[in-house]
Amino acid sequence: MSRKSLLAALAAALMVAASSCVNAPEVSTEQIVLDNIFSRKSVRSFTDEPVTPQQIETLLRAGMAAPSGSNIQPWSFVVLQDKDRYLEIFSENNFNQRVFAQSAAIIVVCSDTTVVRAPRNDPQGTPVKMVNGTWRDDAGAVTENILLAVEAMGLGAVWTACYPYHDRMDPVKSSLGLPAEVVPYSVVALGHPAGDDQPKDKWKPEKVHYGKW
Amino acid sequence: MSRKSLLAALAAALMVAASSCVNAPEVSTEQIVLDNIFSRKSVRSFTDEPVTPQQIETLLRAGMAAPSGSNIQPWSFVVLQDKDRYLEIFSENNFNQRVFAQSAAIIVVCSDTTVVRAPRNDPQGTPVKMVNGTWRDDAGAVTENILLAVEAMGLGAVWTACYPYHDRMDPVKSSLGLPAEVVPYSVVALGHPAGDDQPKDKWKPEKVHYGKW
Repeated sequence: MSRKSLLAALAAALMVAASSCVNAPEVSTEQIVLDNIFSRKSVRSFTDEPVTPQQIETLLRAGMAAPSGSNIQPWSFVVLQDKDRYLEIFSENNFNQRVFAQSAAIIVVCSDTTVVRAPRNDPQGTPVKMVNGTWRDDAGAVTENILLAVEAMGLGAVWTACYPYHDRMDPVKSSLGLPAEVVPYSVVALGHPAGDDQPKDKWKPEKVHYGKW
Repeated sequence: MSRKSLLAALAAALMVAASSCVNAPEVSTEQIVLDNIFSRKSVRSFTDEPVTPQQIETLLRAGMAAPSGSNIQPWSFVVLQDKDRYLEIFSENNFNQRVFAQSAAIIVVCSDTTVVRAPRNDPQGTPVKMVNGTWRDDAGAVTENILLAVEAMGLGAVWTACYPYHDRMDPVKSSLGLPAEVVPYSVVALGHPAGDDQPKDKWKPEKVHYGKW
C-alpha cells in the first residue's frame, strides 16, 4: 500500500467521521417537545396491534404529572382492556362506537368533585367536605398530558367528552362502580394508529389580543 | 512521514470518528417529551430577564394546538406585558400578587362559552347561539399545552385559576374589556425561572383501577 493510498484512506476516514457526525440529530429538545404538541391529533382508526401494560403505565404516569389546583390531585383512572366489556358499557350510550370498536384500550379519566379541607376563612379549622372548584380543570390537564404522551410514544388516541353529558356519564358511572362524588370526565380510546388521521393547523393570530381585548 | 505513522494517524482518525458518534445524544424523542411532562412545574419566582415576542408567539401557537370538542376552538388570549398595568388589574382581586410582581408577562387564556351552530336534533337547521358544553375543557388543554411549551423553552410559569371564581373573573373581565360571553379562564404568569421551584412526584398507583373501580 503506497503512502499516497494511505493518505487517501486517511482522508476518506476523516470525511466519514465528519459526515457521520454532521448527520447526527441536531434538533433541540425544545423543538422536539413543540413538534410533539403540534403533531398531536385525534386518532379514530387503529390497527389490531395491542398496547402493553408498560405503555399504559407510562400514560398514567404522564397523566398524574398534571398541575393540580391547591395540589388536591382529584384524579383517578379506570383502565379498560376487555373490548367486549367496554363495548357493552359504551353501547348503552353509544358515543364513538366505531372508534371504540377499533381501539386497543380505553382510559376513563375520573375526578373527585369534592375535597376534605379546612374552610378558606378558617385555615386552622376542622376539615370539612366541600366542592373542589378546580376538579374539572385538573382533569383536562391530565387528559391532555395523556394525549401528548400517546403522540410521543407513536400511539394514537381520541379524547371523548363524558362530563358534562349525563346520558354519557350515568351508564359509565354505574357500570364502572364509581363512588358518588367521582365523575367520569373523559374517555380516552387508544391504540396503534392506522395512519388515516392528521393534525390540524389551528393557529389564528386574530385570537390574540395585546394589552386589551 | 513513515507508513507506520500514517497507519497510526488513520487508526486515530477512525477512533475519533467512532467516539464522537458514540457520544452523540442517544435519548429518544419519546423520552424527551415524557421527561418534559415530568419536569413541568409551577414556577413562582422569576429573574428580571424579559421574554421575547417570539417566545410569546410560540407559547400561543402551542396553546392553539390543543384539542377542541367538535373543533369549535372557543379560545382566545390576552397578553399583558405592561407590569404596572397588570399589577393594577390583578390587585383589585389580588391573587398571586407576589408571583405576578416578578413575572415578565401574563397570558390570560379566555374561552367563549357559546357557539353558533345548528341544533343537534336538526343538523341541517338554522344555526343558533347555544352553550358550548366543552369550552372549559378545551381551555384547560390550551393552558396545559402552554405550560409544557414553557418548560421545554427553559421558561417558567404558574397556572392561576380565574374561572370559576367571580371575585377573580369580574375585575379581569371588565379591565380587559372581554365580550359578555367570553370568560377569563386562567391567568398564566411567566418568565425566566429563578430556580427555586421543583417538579412534584405525583405518581400514585392506587389511583388506577383496572376493569372496574
